[in-house]
Amino acid sequence: MLAAVRQGLPPALRRHLGSLAALPVDLGAELRAILGDRLTTAPSALEQHGRDESFHRPVPPQAVAFPESTEEVAAIVRAAAAHRTPIVPFGAGTSLEGHVAALRGGICLDMTRMNRILEVNPEDMDCWVNPEDMDCWVQAGVTRKQLDEHLRDTGLFFPVDPGADATLGGMAATRASGTAAVRYGTMRDNVRSLTVVLPDGSVTRTGRRVRKSSAGYDLTALFVGSEGTLGVITEVSLRLFGVPEAAAAAVCTFSGMKAAVDTATLVMQSGIPVARIELMDELQADAINKYSHTQLALAPTLFFEFHGSPAAVKEAAEAAGAIAADLGGADFQWADREEERRRLWSARHSAYYAARALRPGGNGLITDVCVPLSRLTECVLEAQRLCKSHGLLAPLVGHVGDSNFHMLLIIDPANAEELARAHRAVDDLVHLAQDVGGTCTGEHGIGHGKLCHLEREHGLPALQAMHGIKQALDPLNIMNPGKLGSDPAGFAAAAHIDEQA
Amino acid sequence: MLAAVRQGLPPALRRHLGSLAALPVDLGAELRAILGDRLTTAPSALEQHGRDESFHRPVPPQAVAFPESTEEVAAIVRAAAAHRTPIVPFGAGTSLEGHVAALRGGICLDMTRMNRILEVNPEDMDCWVNPEDMDCWVQAGVTRKQLDEHLRDTGLFFPVDPGADATLGGMAATRASGTAAVRYGTMRDNVRSLTVVLPDGSVTRTGRRVRKSSAGYDLTALFVGSEGTLGVITEVSLRLFGVPEAAAAAVCTFSGMKAAVDTATLVMQSGIPVARIELMDELQADAINKYSHTQLALAPTLFFEFHGSPAAVKEAAEAAGAIAADLGGADFQWADREEERRRLWSARHSAYYAARALRPGGNGLITDVCVPLSRLTECVLEAQRLCKSHGLLAPLVGHVGDSNFHMLLIIDPANAEELARAHRAVDDLVHLAQDVGGTCTGEHGIGHGKLCHLEREHGLPALQAMHGIKQALDPLNIMNPGKLGSDPAGFAAAAHIDEQA
Repeated sequence: MLAAVRQGLPPALRRHLGSLAALPVDLGAELRAILGDRLTTAPSALEQHGRDESFHRPVPPQAVAFPESTEEVAAIVRAAAAHRTPIVPFGAGTSLEGHVAALRGGICLDMTRMNRILEVNPEDMDCWVNPEDMDCWVQAGVTRKQLDEHLRDTGLFFPVDPGADATLGGMAATRASGTAAVRYGTMRDNVRSLTVVLPDGSVTRTGRRVRKSSAGYDLTALFVGSEGTLGVITEVSLRLFGVPEAAAAAVCTFSGMKAAVDTATLVMQSGIPVARIELMDELQADAINKYSHTQLALAPTLFFEFHGSPAAVKEAAEAAGAIAADLGGADFQWADREEERRRLWSARHSAYYAARALRPGGNGLITDVCVPLSRLTECVLEAQRLCKSHGLLAPLVGHVGDSNFHMLLIIDPANAEELARAHRAVDDLVHLAQDVGGTCTGEHGIGHGKLCHLEREHGLPALQAMHGIKQALDPLNIMNPGKLGSDPAGFAAAAHIDEQA
Repeated sequence: MLAAVRQGLPPALRRHLGSLAALPVDLGAELRAILGDRLTTAPSALEQHGRDESFHRPVPPQAVAFPESTEEVAAIVRAAAAHRTPIVPFGAGTSLEGHVAALRGGICLDMTRMNRILEVNPEDMDCWVNPEDMDCWVQAGVTRKQLDEHLRDTGLFFPVDPGADATLGGMAATRASGTAAVRYGTMRDNVRSLTVVLPDGSVTRTGRRVRKSSAGYDLTALFVGSEGTLGVITEVSLRLFGVPEAAAAAVCTFSGMKAAVDTATLVMQSGIPVARIELMDELQADAINKYSHTQLALAPTLFFEFHGSPAAVKEAAEAAGAIAADLGGADFQWADREEERRRLWSARHSAYYAARALRPGGNGLITDVCVPLSRLTECVLEAQRLCKSHGLLAPLVGHVGDSNFHMLLIIDPANAEELARAHRAVDDLVHLAQDVGGTCTGEHGIGHGKLCHLEREHGLPALQAMHGIKQALDPLNIMNPGKLGSDPAGFAAAAHIDEQA
């Protein structure tokens, strides 16, 4: 059964997985005692839990567990530790760098049954309206849209919006952000506290319900972005914000990319308070029109959103509009009503699926560089030139208020030559960003797909420090092994995971 | 010479320091080769570098080094590691929990010669006015006021203001904050990147010059607040903000503490944008009047500051004033001009020295709890009651917008009975805060003075994780040993450091 699932894997990876075939019999029995029928080894479940939404080759786990509480997760981790069997946490499977690939086999922890919203500020709901001090506690498997739905009519919202309907635990684990981070920050800024099952099965709650603390190493910040390699996040406390009094969205097209990016840069440099400012090129606009049946102009386009008092929204929109007009932008097309705004952002959020649909059977290799704002225009133009020179189909979208943009390289994953070209383009783009002080990933994280870029970005001493932290917290190396915190000397191996058999 | 310095130490601590008398001869020679005459073992220098501004008993190092570059720090650390000799970084000596006490002897690194401002956004200065994207690079020994002075006339400022003229490296190391954190955040939010000499003498630069990144464990956040126990911070990149178009400060008095704290709470809960909101009681107002020759009314008092456009400042001030008036506050006394505002905040910043001056020879034992905003009033009133019941002189000041407040217990450190009473009061206050979800320290950090409160706050698994991180990065335990990251089993020993001989 497992042999069939692993049939398609390349030889290097089959060797990597070693002689693992099924879980040790004892461990299976222990897990069944904890989970009953919430443990599966059905091939379809294994296959589904080894893949994310990217081109990366799926690497299935040996079993999938569906825990319902922190205590169950702790019991599973203790059993796994006793058998030195890996644990790979799994949320919605929407990651993009192979985060969930079970590189060393083991147990996938599907967190989607831990989907209870535990608390929304109950004692303070009646009087608190200050965005800075509202929070909620949710289990890690609650999705972004589920929380959004739950908060509707409360006057509160959670602003981190990566597009995909990811789980909040997964978003914390990858330090996700998205379109509204320019105004509200990323998961780094909006996670207050975490419940974490540590690799020895003990449970800790990081942080306190306060605005600030100097009481020891910042474990919350350490686990946010740790991608399941230091422990399993089972509960998340998040900051909430008051729904703004007024909100308005607008679309503005330009005759060229330079004018569009310069407008975004100048809007940011002028300190105009935008809630979102998104860029797309004409190719992406075309893809969205085909996929979402919209009528976007086929031109470089900025999507704006403004939040605040009616007067503040008007003032910000006018200031942004004036900058756009100065640089040759068309008039703003407004979407004032919530339904229109939701339709607009839903179309924007479908960008990746729309881009993939440009090419039947195509899959995505997405770059995620983030650069200093003052270097954004040159980097965007050079990124487009690079993808063209590599002969790749590559629509562009960008959270340009954060100077973070994605080239969606749409490839045929079965075409080894094209995949190799795409990898070269990614390398070029990453180096371009790193050379101006930027990062290889603004929000998607490392998984195994970007391990190879870390040394150039951080240097060996930082990677050795990360490896030391990983070894200290997870001495048996059972937490999502082969990814963040690995010995940097072994990073090269990660580059072969996606190779063809 | 060293024997004379250590004469006054209690027996437990003399045993703790073991047989250390002077640096190993070889190490002394190596350090002189690096530093020339910038290494001293003069008793007065040793004594001065073992003390901070609190009641904690000074514990002098064996030598004081004055490095001038990251490379020199790295060379010193390599030499110290070879001899397994401790390193204790020292900024302005303004910490309050014995952070700089050389508990295991070793070399004090006085960072004050590393006081160069390396870069203030040079390529972007002409066009950038967006507060979110300006930054500077400074050496760790640059003080807050030095940077303030340097930025004058640039239109920029750095907002984290703990009162004391601390070094920016020290502020990063203790995750400091202060009066303006309610608007601009703490060092956690405002440090972009750090240059750190790791315990093996290698050098790393954490983070990138971008608004966000998901590239690995957040080492910047790990070093911010690590109090010199994981490495030596030698350079700091800080976010800068545009000087607000308008600013105004006001003072408002109340007939009772409850009305004053309720006003602060309601202002925050109403989302009124304040840049500072500070509380003091009548005892503290009296102390400041005597020390700074001001004419504050002897009553519970709130200090406000508002930043923004003239219209926004007016709107916020009116809204806050209306809440204060509703709760029986007096009319706002305004300080509009910058000189008046500086005088006002300078008086507020002298609060600790003013409180100490209430009692000749008195020294301070300062609590630093931070609680959920909804519990602030009850905690402030209970804290006052507790200090009274312990018979202690204890003026109160608070950064109440952050729900962080200090009881300044002014004691005679030579009076063992009074010191014991003060310690009991601190324990009571910490437990009060922890029991409502708060923290034992909002901004002062742990040093050795608050180690005993960590287990109750974080639990053993979190402390074991911190200890693991410390061991991983500093296996020889040479970085400010005996403090954060120590084996939690040894925390009890820390409680004896201040005992009398």
